[in-house]
Amino acid sequence: MSQYSSSLLDAAVNEFAKLPGIGRKTALRLVLYLLRQDIASAEALGNAIINLRNEVKYCKVCHNISDNDLCDICSNANRDSSIVCVTESIKDVMAIENTQQFNGLYHVLGGVISPMDGISPNDLEIDSLVERVAAGGISEVILALSTTMEGDTTNFYLFRKLAPFNVNISILARGVSIGDELEYTDEVTLGRSILNRTPFNDSFKL
Amino acid sequence: MSQYSSSLLDAAVNEFAKLPGIGRKTALRLVLYLLRQDIASAEALGNAIINLRNEVKYCKVCHNISDNDLCDICSNANRDSSIVCVTESIKDVMAIENTQQFNGLYHVLGGVISPMDGISPNDLEIDSLVERVAAGGISEVILALSTTMEGDTTNFYLFRKLAPFNVNISILARGVSIGDELEYTDEVTLGRSILNRTPFNDSFKL
Repeated sequence: MSQYSSSLLDAAVNEFAKLPGIGRKTALRLVLYLLRQDIASAEALGNAIINLRNEVKYCKVCHNISDNDLCDICSNANRDSSIVCVTESIKDVMAIENTQQFNGLYHVLGGVISPMDGISPNDLEIDSLVERVAAGGISEVILALSTTMEGDTTNFYLFRKLAPFNVNISILARGVSIGDELEYTDEVTLGRSILNRTPFNDSFKL
Repeated sequence: MSQYSSSLLDAAVNEFAKLPGIGRKTALRLVLYLLRQDIASAEALGNAIINLRNEVKYCKVCHNISDNDLCDICSNANRDSSIVCVTESIKDVMAIENTQQFNGLYHVLGGVISPMDGISPNDLEIDSLVERVAAGGISEVILALSTTMEGDTTNFYLFRKLAPFNVNISILARGVSIGDELEYTDEVTLGRSILNRTPFNDSFKL
């Protein structure tokens, strides 16, 4: 016998509870909420989930999520195709787009090298990045990966892969966060921000 | 243009964000999680939601959610059909079932009378309760509604509706919660628990 009085209820709670951050209590609350809505809105949610997974496309160039073979960013003639920003995930593309400070193109790796999690360079879109750079027309590659051990490992790997080509390789500036009090900044970050200090006039460029 | 680079992503985030307690950031997190899963698990969630809403049935007798016309509780010959516990929602049925202290049947009203929210007695399963009691065979009706203004209003309404019949009407005991310190119990509850004090021996019955 199922935990609840209906096997449909049981199935829906089980499926919701598989999502990250949603336990069985929250799952039950969501399911009971859906039961109170009209059929159309439950179907809208259900179909949105199924369509998302079945019909989603990734840009053939940058591997960002897209409706077409070429994403809106790669197909935008106003963007500078000579600068490519390498990110870990499509979420990072969104984060950088939100800053409105970058007008180049992206390359989504799909993760970072992490032997602990069994993620090797072959699992990532590294070969396609090297091909993009080898094809020419790219003057700068910005490595915008997480400042973790795995991110740094991937940075070094990419640096060695891209070094043979005539391309500038940069990484995101690391330093004290805007709005942070120095007192509470961790020592490693503070140390780096002193080593990589910026000429005062440059700090007003943005 | 959609907020995200894919209209499918946009649609899924919008639908998730309609759920209670899920904002756009959490919705995006869930959607990106689903994108990383295989197609089967996304379809399982989507279909569970659609099936739930399309195929769900309610017990014809007690209006609890059920797979069949008659729910597992109503069709269970081992349960005492002479006692009916009236609850607001199917969630309250689950809560009472979890106590394992009740072996009778239920009657789910589908809410409480609340003029503020436009819920009148006609919107609730009150007529069907009166019919059940009028049909005979029920010796006691337990009113297990919330101890709110609306719950009390509904209690009084039900009491007047059921008074003409030869049936005992009881409500849940109200008093100090188990594990509560008296010091922090609110005055109304504490006052009631003195007025409705129980003979000492009776308190060990459970």
